[in-house]
This record gives sequence, C-alpha cells and structure tokens, in this order.
Amino acid sequence: MSTVGLVGLGSMGYGMGRSLLRAGLTVHGFDLAPEQVARFEAEGGRGGALAEVAGALDALVLVVVNAEQMATVLFGESGVAAALKPGALVLGCATVAPAAARDFEQRLGEAGLLYLDAPISGGAAKAAEGALTMMASGSPQAFAAAEPLLEAMAATVFRLGDTAGPASAMKMVNQLLAGVHIAAAAEAMTFGMTQGVAPADCLRVISQCAGSSWMFENRGPHIAEGDYRPRSAVEIFVKDLGIVSDIARAARFSAPLSAAALQQFLAASGLGLGREDDAAVAKVYARNAGLTLPGEEGG
Amino acid sequence: MSTVGLVGLGSMGYGMGRSLLRAGLTVHGFDLAPEQVARFEAEGGRGGALAEVAGALDALVLVVVNAEQMATVLFGESGVAAALKPGALVLGCATVAPAAARDFEQRLGEAGLLYLDAPISGGAAKAAEGALTMMASGSPQAFAAAEPLLEAMAATVFRLGDTAGPASAMKMVNQLLAGVHIAAAAEAMTFGMTQGVAPADCLRVISQCAGSSWMFENRGPHIAEGDYRPRSAVEIFVKDLGIVSDIARAARFSAPLSAAALQQFLAASGLGLGREDDAAVAKVYARNAGLTLPGEEGG
Repeated sequence: MSTVGLVGLGSMGYGMGRSLLRAGLTVHGFDLAPEQVARFEAEGGRGGALAEVAGALDALVLVVVNAEQMATVLFGESGVAAALKPGALVLGCATVAPAAARDFEQRLGEAGLLYLDAPISGGAAKAAEGALTMMASGSPQAFAAAEPLLEAMAATVFRLGDTAGPASAMKMVNQLLAGVHIAAAAEAMTFGMTQGVAPADCLRVISQCAGSSWMFENRGPHIAEGDYRPRSAVEIFVKDLGIVSDIARAARFSAPLSAAALQQFLAASGLGLGREDDAAVAKVYARNAGLTLPGEEGG
Repeated sequence: MSTVGLVGLGSMGYGMGRSLLRAGLTVHGFDLAPEQVARFEAEGGRGGALAEVAGALDALVLVVVNAEQMATVLFGESGVAAALKPGALVLGCATVAPAAARDFEQRLGEAGLLYLDAPISGGAAKAAEGALTMMASGSPQAFAAAEPLLEAMAATVFRLGDTAGPASAMKMVNQLLAGVHIAAAAEAMTFGMTQGVAPADCLRVISQCAGSSWMFENRGPHIAEGDYRPRSAVEIFVKDLGIVSDIARAARFSAPLSAAALQQFLAASGLGLGREDDAAVAKVYARNAGLTLPGEEGG
C-alpha cells in the first residue's frame, strides 16, 4: 500500500487526504472544484485525471456525498472500477443505505476488487487530525488492505462484521439520532424563548442536565451565537434522514421522530437555507412562532 | 432554619430528605405511603400529621408529582399554607408550568410566605448523594432562606431570576429534550434492529459517536438488557411532555418532535406500560414493527 486516490476534497475528505499524506503515502486528490485540488497539491498531494491515474492506485477512498456519486465514480460513463489494479481496495466513506453498500461490495468483487464499507463520524476537525471514528465492515482481505489507511485517518475503528452493510446500517442509526437531536436542540431552544429562556442561558444550563446531547452541545452555540456558517449543511440531513425514511419505510418501521425531524430540515431547505449550517433548522421554528433569533435583525 | 417538612418520599424526595438529615436539620417526612414514612423515621427522620407539624416548620419542601398535588397540599381542604409560620419558605421541586410557579409565588406571598421555584434534575442516585442539579428562581429573600437546603441537596444550583417562573421554564426545556431523546434512543435502537444492528452493538458504538445523548447512554442499557424496572416511569413523560404540549400550544409554538415523542409515550401507557421504566417506549416501536426486544420471549 503506497499510492492512494481520494475522491471528494470537501470538509471531510480534505482532512482525510492530509492525514494520509502525513502517514507517508502518495495521495492523488480528485474533486470537481479545481481550487481544492490545487490547494491539496500545495500541501504535497498530487492531482491528475482519475482515469489516467487509476491503474497506479493501491486503493481508492471515496468521500463523496451519496451512493449515486459513488456509482458514477466507479461504474459511470468514465467509471474507474474497470481501470483499477486487480485486488485494489475501494474504501466507501459516504453515508449510504446498507443495501447500496452490499451492492458495491458485490459488483466490485465481480471486478476482482476489494471493498470496505467504512462510513465516518466526527466532523472536519477530527478528519484533519486523523482522529475520525470509522464504522467498518467487509472481508478480512479488505480490512487487511485498509489497515494503513484506517490507521492514518481514524482514532477509533469499530469492526462491525465481515461483509459490507453492517457499518452503513450503524451509520444510519447514528444519522437518525444526530438529525433528531439537532432538530430537538432547535425545538427546545426556540420553545424556551417562548417561555422567556434566552438561548445562551438554555445552553449553559441544559448542557449540564439530563437533556443534553452531543449535538445540543455542538450545534446549540451556533443558534445562541447566530452563526450559521456551514460546518455541516442542512442538505446533509435532508439527504441522510431521507435515507433513514426510505429504508424505514421499506422495513415497515414506523419512525415518527425521524419523520418529524426530516420535515423540519425539508422546511429549512424550502426556505432557501439548504446550504446554511444544519443548526439553521432553528429558523423554521422561529419563523413559525414569530420569534427573532440571536443574530437576526432585532435579535 | 432548623426544622423542615418534606412532602413526597418517592425516589427523589426520599434521597433529598436523607440529604437534609445529613446536614443536621430536623426533617419531618410526609407521604401517602406509611411504609415510606416509617423507613424515613428509621433513618432519623420524623413523621407526624402535616397539619399538626406545620406551625413548627421553617420550610416546606414539595417533591410531589405535579402542580395539582402542590395546590392540594398548600391550598386544598386541609391545605397547610394557612398553618405555616409567617415568613416560612415553600420550596417547589415538582415539574410544573411556569405560570403555575408564578401563581404559587403570588398566592403564598399574599399569605406572608416565601416561595422558591426550584425544579430538580439528576435522578434518584444524585438525590441520595445530595448532588442534584437545581434550577432556581425567586426573590432574594426566598433564596436566602433556601440556602441551607440547596447546600444540602444540590451539587449545582442555577440561579435563573428573581421571580418564580424562569426555573420552571428551564425545567420544561430540559424535559422536552429528555423526553424526545428517550423516544429517539428507542426509535434508533429498534430501527437498527430492522437493519441487523443488535442493541448492544448500537449502544457500544453510538455512545462514542455524534449521535449520543445523556439519555441514550443512560436509558439505552435498559433496552439492550431488557430491564424495565422503573427508575423513572413512562407516566412521568406522559405528564411532562403533556405540560410541554399544553404550554407550547398556548404560546402558538409548533413542536413536532415533542408532539411525536408524547404520542409514543401515550401509546406505551395505553399498552399498559405506564408504570414501567420510560425506556419501555421501545416496546411501542418493537410491537409496531414485529420486533422481539432483548429480554422478551424469544429475544
């Protein structure tokens, strides 16, 4: 394992690419935004056209947005699955439905390639530090090939089974909770405002009470400070709670909290806030209740 | 401040009474269950009839279930407000609507008594250790009178204002989040089961991910171990999310997650699980989806 390709130099992928460089690997970075590739090259990474580089890669790390983008990169019109070396590893880090992960494993296996189902959690800062949490499942061969990459990028790796699927299933459980907790934080802080509780007080007190959550402590300050620069955007939860909704419906599983949270993120997106920080779901609550949030005019 | 009455020797009140005894105060305990009073007397507490003892009390701590019970104790047919010493303190620790707290302060003030709005958080173990979190608001005189009691019962006291109301408002925000997070934990763990994720694995992994919450970590083990002995019962959240729902509706505040969570607790109660641990809301999800939870026959 010495030469790695990484597709998707966004907030997560860029940091992961840097972590791979720090581990001494040769890393080719690919992104639709040429300025991200140039930035990565300035840090010691390499660019190039994926189709031309593919044959030299020991592994391809996919940090794209969804299963559709993964399928396009691998099997689309200029898909690279056919150009990769026999036995090369594909590391799938996007959030996808478990069935999609199983499908990638099967199609890549038929092409003589290894696949590790490896969704990530932890945010951009942890990605840059090489301190992500990764949920991983796949064949022992895929795990063995992935070892130096996981070592470079993650502080914690949960090994969840010997086929693709379980890791993506666990990631969906995490996203269900994360999405519900962000919407709940927004609901609670705006509800508090109707009862005379200022968001900053709410944050200070609840963080030390049984009502707290990782997301309340992480996103609550965005609301209290009126700072909606996107650390992770509203559209991410439109997508991820959408996948939860799809696979819950297919399983005939009634998920009323996830469904309610999805509607709030959809409303945020419908209000034109899709690219703002996901904490902007608070603006849906505020507008519905005639409240002025911190940082808004008059707030 | 030397003689205190405490009404409600339940899982929280009993521990609070012990904490007051440890601080060297004379404590009369009152409860509808005579065995709880006898147990408290065996630990150095005192019993008696509230109406007869009332005139000797410097303070009366109310750890009853709701505002109705508080009103009955204070102003009901054999209510003690009229029998308390002038300037005595009433400490209201029940979860009540902010308007109810303001109403108690006003009526007790008219009777020459002090009132501190002082809801609690932390659970029975913290109550027994004298390590509760208390949210408190009220007049400077009420705070001054309450000082030795707060010192004895709480590790953290949030001082939230100089009238009754803000403390109860903050408690309602906490209960909104706590109730939503318990239902979300149940939804996520059972959703995971439909995707092949075992509850114990879910607990182990998610506790270290961004999807975690205080409630997920606290109630998740009840579900994973199939242990529904009531630490806090389903009916508590039927009540508390009911108050959230009432005051949100009065404020014309749309609270879809709280509403969805309340429906799940109502369904649990309707299934006859009202006195089980609140984690039994998982049984609603499981029954709706045909899942067998850990600890159930075949689970």
